[in-house]
Amino acid sequence: MPLQMNAEELMAYLEEVFPQVRSDFAVDRLAEMEVDLRLKVADRHLRPGGTVSGPSMFSLADCAVYAITLAMVGRRALAVTTNATIDFMRKPAAGADLIAQCRLLKLGRVLAVGDVLIFSEGEAAPVARASLTYSLPPGGG
Amino acid sequence: MPLQMNAEELMAYLEEVFPQVRSDFAVDRLAEMEVDLRLKVADRHLRPGGTVSGPSMFSLADCAVYAITLAMVGRRALAVTTNATIDFMRKPAAGADLIAQCRLLKLGRVLAVGDVLIFSEGEAAPVARASLTYSLPPGGG
Amino acid sequence: MPLQMNAEELMAYLEEVFPQVRSDFAVDRLAEMEVDLRLKVADRHLRPGGTVSGPSMFSLADCAVYAITLAMVGRRALAVTTNATIDFMRKPAAGADLIAQCRLLKLGRVLAVGDVLIFSEGEAAPVARASLTYSLPPGGG
Amino acid sequence: MPLQMNAEELMAYLEEVFPQVRSDFAVDRLAEMEVDLRLKVADRHLRPGGTVSGPSMFSLADCAVYAITLAMVGRRALAVTTNATIDFMRKPAAGADLIAQCRLLKLGRVLAVGDVLIFSEGEAAPVARASLTYSLPPGGG
Repeated sequence: MPLQMNAEELMAYLEEVFPQVRSDFAVDRLAEMEVDLRLKVADRHLRPGGTVSGPSMFSLADCAVYAITLAMVGRRALAVTTNATIDFMRKPAAGADLIAQCRLLKLGRVLAVGDVLIFSEGEAAPVARASLTYSLPPGGG
Repeated sequence: MPLQMNAEELMAYLEEVFPQVRSDFAVDRLAEMEVDLRLKVADRHLRPGGTVSGPSMFSLADCAVYAITLAMVGRRALAVTTNATIDFMRKPAAGADLIAQCRLLKLGRVLAVGDVLIFSEGEAAPVARASLTYSLPPGGG
Repeated sequence: MPLQMNAEELMAYLEEVFPQVRSDFAVDRLAEMEVDLRLKVADRHLRPGGTVSGPSMFSLADCAVYAITLAMVGRRALAVTTNATIDFMRKPAAGADLIAQCRLLKLGRVLAVGDVLIFSEGEAAPVARASLTYSLPPGGG
Repeated sequence: MPLQMNAEELMAYLEEVFPQVRSDFAVDRLAEMEVDLRLKVADRHLRPGGTVSGPSMFSLADCAVYAITLAMVGRRALAVTTNATIDFMRKPAAGADLIAQCRLLKLGRVLAVGDVLIFSEGEAAPVARASLTYSLPPGGG
């Protein structure tokens, strides 16, 4: 199944649906069933002490699975998260962007399942791992 | 095991640790191993269309388990979330606060496990369900 | 939404679909959107040392959500588990049955979400907590 | 951090701790922080219709993370599962063994986190995805 959008079209669509996307996220790499999404870490994503907050990491993982799902099925803004599980494993590095490496493991008629590893840019050990399920609305774009 | 703080002390401590708490959250009820935490829904918590965003609900669930854990063990700011699972079940009602009803199911030496149901205020059916594990730092206060 | 089966009809149906049910499980209580399911603990459910194994507890939680879903929607054997999360919190008591207290939190057209607390019979503190999502096949009976 | 056991030593130890291991599982590949574990599918693992049961897949994922954790830290039988999340994505192929490809993403002092993809042997698309957390007992061997 081929991609329905390239990285530019995907970002344009995400910005249309979620206005905060432009300032928060960037698509670093897009391929069939895979995306690398960057969180451009800014003060509003930080906890006191300088580490990226849990909700910001949740948001990055959620947006990554949403992005690759839309890139595969085309414009279906109404896809909704039904389940998310996240393991926080290490403290993010201060002052570094976060990169979510996301694979879509299943893209069914009704459900899509994605798997995410989150890294502080330049680090080898992941800071978090997440899996999310999206429910797809009936019909196409 | 009795509470180590009352609702006022808990809010004061949360605000000290997470400055955004004052504007986002309020403790509606506090009891042994239980807390009801309110998300004072504002524009910044909303998706286009007026529904509360997933990361805002994640943040509410996470803060509820953190709050009741601290209320039980006393000031140990360094407790960190290690795992979170959230099921999004219904669309939140527009214009209503969200209430997280949280129970601590386990409070061990090393791990605490909490369980959360999130409701739109005044609605009977939950919008989301979450469970979170916190890792507790060694030692007390 | 009323129950489509009583406890006897539910057990008969479960035994038809999963032959091992008769020897493993019993319906202790059945109500709208709620079931208490008992695991009749036997040697085959135990780890060395006498504690009930993780897969046996998983199986109990999974069967409880399946049972209450079928009791609510009627005979639709093809409902399948899509996601399960389980927190193991305490060691089960030796020589005691396990009781799963299960609530269905959502019963949608496509997905059902259930929430389970597992207790060693006679104990107040839960040994495990689980949440499961079932995907429902289109159509009724 | 190097492996503390080779595949033969690992299997011997697993069989000592869990007697059923010999008949159910085989170590196909063992490397630093990684193991491929095979479920030798037999009638007792099947649902009516010939598909591998959910509890059997749970058991495979659980055993894979346990195995690689022990292989890395040495003989610490008392490691216990604290959290498991599993997404069931496709029906396993009839008559095929299941292979769990497991990576340890974190091996901390207190917690280990592993990530598992389960495949029907010879198929490219995973049937399930799981992540599990183990709590490690204090001290070594």
